[in-house]
Amino acid sequence: MHKFEEKTLNTQSIFKGKIISLQVDEVELPDGKKANRELIKHPGAVCVIAITDEKKIILVEQYRKALERPLVEVPAGKLEPGEEPSICAGRELEEETGYRPGKITHIQSFYTSPGFADELVHVFLAEQLEKVEEGLVADEDEFVDLLEVTIEEAEQLVKESRVFDAKTLWALQYVRLKALV
Amino acid sequence: MHKFEEKTLNTQSIFKGKIISLQVDEVELPDGKKANRELIKHPGAVCVIAITDEKKIILVEQYRKALERPLVEVPAGKLEPGEEPSICAGRELEEETGYRPGKITHIQSFYTSPGFADELVHVFLAEQLEKVEEGLVADEDEFVDLLEVTIEEAEQLVKESRVFDAKTLWALQYVRLKALV
Repeated sequence: MHKFEEKTLNTQSIFKGKIISLQVDEVELPDGKKANRELIKHPGAVCVIAITDEKKIILVEQYRKALERPLVEVPAGKLEPGEEPSICAGRELEEETGYRPGKITHIQSFYTSPGFADELVHVFLAEQLEKVEEGLVADEDEFVDLLEVTIEEAEQLVKESRVFDAKTLWALQYVRLKALV
Repeated sequence: MHKFEEKTLNTQSIFKGKIISLQVDEVELPDGKKANRELIKHPGAVCVIAITDEKKIILVEQYRKALERPLVEVPAGKLEPGEEPSICAGRELEEETGYRPGKITHIQSFYTSPGFADELVHVFLAEQLEKVEEGLVADEDEFVDLLEVTIEEAEQLVKESRVFDAKTLWALQYVRLKALV
C-alpha cells in the first residue's frame, strides 16, 4: 500500500453512459480527513502514428463536440470490450484512413487526465502501409477528413492550433526525436 | 461553420461537481442523423517544467484516485475561476515544491481528452528557481512527494511506468528536443 493511498469509504454511481461513466468516491486521506473524488471511467483508447512510404504522417480532422471545434489528430479510437489494443489500432487506422499497416508496433501508453479520469491511451507506430480502400468508413457517427503531411507541415498545424491535443503533440515530438521521417 | 459541425438539439445536465460537470448533448450529425455526446466540462489546468540551477527536473509523486495508484508527474494544478494561467503556474509550483520561479514562460497548451472532455492544460517553463520554503504546502486534500531528477533518471521512471501521463511524457520529450538540461 502506498503511503498516500486514499481509502474508499463509499462510492456513489452518478451516470453510466455509452462511453464514459461517472462516480463520486468519498475517501479517507493519509491524515485521516475525508474528501470527495469525482471520477470518470473510460474504456481506454488507441492512437496511431502512421507513416507512408513517402514519409508523410497521416492525420485526420474531425469535429470535437466537447470543444465545439474541429481538431487535426493522429487516427485514434476507443477500445471495444476485451479488444487487444494492437488489433484496435489496425482496425481504427483502416476505418478512418483506408490504410492497412503491414507492421504495427506498440511504442508507449499514457493516462490522459489522471486527475479525474482513468482513460489510458496506447500509442502504436504503423508502417508498411497499403491503401486498401479509397472511401473513409468511420464509425456511423464519425465524419473525418484525411490529411497526409510532412513533419514540417504538421508542426505548422500546431502553430495554427489546428493540432491541439496531447496525444498528437506527443506523437509529433516522438517522430522528431526518433527521426522517423 | 465547419462542415462537420454537430448542431446541439438539446443539452441534459447530469452532474455539477466541485471540479467537473457532466452533460449529455443530443446532436444533429452532418448527414442529418442524431447522436448523443457525453461531455465533461473542466476548468482547465496548468503544468510546469521546472528546472533547477543544477539542471535537475522537478517532479512530484502523488496518489491518483482515478487510477488507484501513485504517479510521478510534472507539478500541476487546476485553474481557479478567472485565474491567469501564468499566475496559477507559479502558485502551484511554489505550493507543491517550495520553489518560486524568477522566470516563467508559456510554451504550449493542449487538450487532454478531446473525445469527451474540454480540459485544456497550459504548459509553462519555470527557470531561475529560488527555494522559498522547505515544507510542502499543497492543497488541503493533496499529499505530494518531491523528486529532483536528471533527464536520464526521469526517462528511467518512464520505463518503470512510474511516469505514465501524457503531459509529463510530453514535457520530458520537450526537455530532450530543446536540450534544456
